[in-house]
Amino acid sequence: MEKIIKYDCQFMSAEKVGSFGFKKQELAKLGKKLATINKKIEKLKNNPDLSFRKLPYDNLLVNLLGKLNVILKKNFKNLVIVGIGASDLGARAIIRTLAGRYNNQLKTKGLNIYFAGNTTDPRVLDDLLKILDLKKTAFFIVSRSGSTIEPMVSFLYFRKKVIGAVGQKKAQKHFIISTLPNKNPLSDIAQKEGYLNLAHYPGGGRYSVLSANGLLSAMACGFDIKKLLAGARVIDKISKSNNLKVNSPFIFAALQYLAYKKRKQNISVLMPYNYYLNEFAFWFRQLWAESLGKERLGITPIAALGPTDQHSQLQLYIEGPHDKIITFIIAEKYKHDLSVPKTNNKEMAYLGGHSFNQILKIEHKATSVSLMKSQRPNGTIYLPELNEYYLGQLFFFFEMAAVYLGELLGINVFNQPGVEHSKKYMYGLLGRKGFEKEAREIKKFL
Amino acid sequence: MEKIIKYDCQFMSAEKVGSFGFKKQELAKLGKKLATINKKIEKLKNNPDLSFRKLPYDNLLVNLLGKLNVILKKNFKNLVIVGIGASDLGARAIIRTLAGRYNNQLKTKGLNIYFAGNTTDPRVLDDLLKILDLKKTAFFIVSRSGSTIEPMVSFLYFRKKVIGAVGQKKAQKHFIISTLPNKNPLSDIAQKEGYLNLAHYPGGGRYSVLSANGLLSAMACGFDIKKLLAGARVIDKISKSNNLKVNSPFIFAALQYLAYKKRKQNISVLMPYNYYLNEFAFWFRQLWAESLGKERLGITPIAALGPTDQHSQLQLYIEGPHDKIITFIIAEKYKHDLSVPKTNNKEMAYLGGHSFNQILKIEHKATSVSLMKSQRPNGTIYLPELNEYYLGQLFFFFEMAAVYLGELLGINVFNQPGVEHSKKYMYGLLGRKGFEKEAREIKKFL
Repeated sequence: MEKIIKYDCQFMSAEKVGSFGFKKQELAKLGKKLATINKKIEKLKNNPDLSFRKLPYDNLLVNLLGKLNVILKKNFKNLVIVGIGASDLGARAIIRTLAGRYNNQLKTKGLNIYFAGNTTDPRVLDDLLKILDLKKTAFFIVSRSGSTIEPMVSFLYFRKKVIGAVGQKKAQKHFIISTLPNKNPLSDIAQKEGYLNLAHYPGGGRYSVLSANGLLSAMACGFDIKKLLAGARVIDKISKSNNLKVNSPFIFAALQYLAYKKRKQNISVLMPYNYYLNEFAFWFRQLWAESLGKERLGITPIAALGPTDQHSQLQLYIEGPHDKIITFIIAEKYKHDLSVPKTNNKEMAYLGGHSFNQILKIEHKATSVSLMKSQRPNGTIYLPELNEYYLGQLFFFFEMAAVYLGELLGINVFNQPGVEHSKKYMYGLLGRKGFEKEAREIKKFL
Repeated sequence: MEKIIKYDCQFMSAEKVGSFGFKKQELAKLGKKLATINKKIEKLKNNPDLSFRKLPYDNLLVNLLGKLNVILKKNFKNLVIVGIGASDLGARAIIRTLAGRYNNQLKTKGLNIYFAGNTTDPRVLDDLLKILDLKKTAFFIVSRSGSTIEPMVSFLYFRKKVIGAVGQKKAQKHFIISTLPNKNPLSDIAQKEGYLNLAHYPGGGRYSVLSANGLLSAMACGFDIKKLLAGARVIDKISKSNNLKVNSPFIFAALQYLAYKKRKQNISVLMPYNYYLNEFAFWFRQLWAESLGKERLGITPIAALGPTDQHSQLQLYIEGPHDKIITFIIAEKYKHDLSVPKTNNKEMAYLGGHSFNQILKIEHKATSVSLMKSQRPNGTIYLPELNEYYLGQLFFFFEMAAVYLGELLGINVFNQPGVEHSKKYMYGLLGRKGFEKEAREIKKFL
């Protein structure tokens, strides 16, 4: 039987943390809504917003990316992902989790992966261009709208440099695009210049990690994207269940809802213990903030990291206000391990012989129990292993949980109306036609 | 005259953001406490906790580090900082801000700097050891107590590897220690093996960035630590003033206090717009959480990043609950710049010719104004430039603000009693003598 990631929520309960935890009857009551919610979601399955549920079944895309990957490997040494927000965070989470931090300096089978376009800080581009051999570098430009300022200016800059290095004609194969196939600046440029446009997934960016946006770099870096998708399918399947004992993404959502609505816990911390899941927590942070933060509602997500933040945030989590809930993630099996050398120092002798992985697990357990003892609700997601398959499960687990949480809160998780105003101010200040009014308005404050 | 970083708090005020902002009379009332607080702090100046105020004047340390740096440069190519929490975050903030992300791949005058010891994840050590030439690598082991588990196990592991690579005798010069000079495991080992112990700053780690803990790596990486200290002295000077118009760290603390106490805004976001200040925000995050999170009080700090998080967190900040205040940091002069190439694409033509740095500033301004228009209090710290001098100011600004905020809240900012319990559980599970009771207690939950 397929193994499934497990959400252990016993330390979230009133039994363990008193009035700061959920009551069984509260959860049971919410559970009665599950069938209705699942029915509603099922009806919307052809809505672009919910089409992320089809991504794990997209064999055509897998085949296309496989062919593309052969070409990339033949021609290039580096792949630079140029995107911001969702166009960056998903790929970053996959690469960091599976390839680690020093991937580009270690000898790996796949391409070196770099990230740019998530800022307009000139120094970041400048530094990156100093270390890249442009002749050996492909760029993946990701912008759903095809007009997002940050990746567009980076793209225009990189393109000029690549043309300078290899000439206009050869530059063509250096750029791969992911933008909606309808008319927009990026798709226009792609068509005119002959760049391959993979056609952005029709739904919103923050549910696009298992589309080409996340999969292209995963494959280019040497990972098995079929396993990522197979993992996601497992969670898709359990999410179709109306049984609370099976549908763990719903349980997760329900406990976030109860903490926020019933106990005013307005902060939700995600704290993986495997170091290289740190970027995963940043992917979660966007999913939670943009999906749920609207109409004066919203749980503020925090990306933390264990055991690192035991020496930074734990003091606050244990003795600060009762305003947060915490979710840990840890792999039960971890293929990496080392052993602490024995030492003659008497006080440190107890450490000798322990495995690092064992210590990691002990740190998680000690933190979780001591939080519980201080009546701080916390839960843990256990991964059987840290690999493509369970990472795929993890992504889909949180995506489904976000959808459920939106339904419970009565919020549309797929839009982000709040950021339009600041974009218009930017257009105004940058002299874009049609935004003269906004330009006048903001200039009062300069 | 010396330039000073500027804290602009107009968008924090009730005038601009209505009932979610501070009232002038509230601030004036708190201001009356400043003289008393300053007097109290002045009296405690010889207390180890407050001795961080002496660090910017420590010329002996500067001279010692200068000599040490000559030896490091002569013998090594890499320096690995082995610490967790405060022993890691300060150095990391300096190196990232000044040297950027690709420092170790670019040709620089100084040593390559790596960080380890802030986790017990075996993969991190494993990866790092694969890319380091140990013969050319020195290690700086930082642990105030000399017994912190994470850096100690990393240290024991690295030491074994270095001895394996260069032999017991030569290994001696590969290790530099920073621990309290009294009897503890790390100082014992240092003494026995002949490692140089720089003697940890007597106060708490999170106020130690301008001691050897932060300065050694800054100097080894080629930066001017005298300028860092000169910057800190400027803020030390203005903090001695009881004039609200001069003492900006107090203003900052007072507005954090008022938001938290009067308006239940329990979240404080720090969002630099210069990309490489991202690790600085993580240094701040520890300072705020550990200093202030106790006795069921505490403001939860969030490390954010502009413009990156405009596409991740801004939706929540603008349309979510009124539960947070935001502080931006941006450099007014930035020595790096690039220009956006002109494009034939009509819709994107407005971007051509703009400088990246100008766009960065426009993004900050548009975000700040649109938050204000949505009645979201936000302030901005303007740095005249991003260099050692103003970074030194920035560190000291927040350290003094934390002290003031602790005084206003009636909290001792220098202890962290909350993390002791989980440490004891760990000791118990790791089989350390004297912790059998804790072992029994936690084993019930395994």
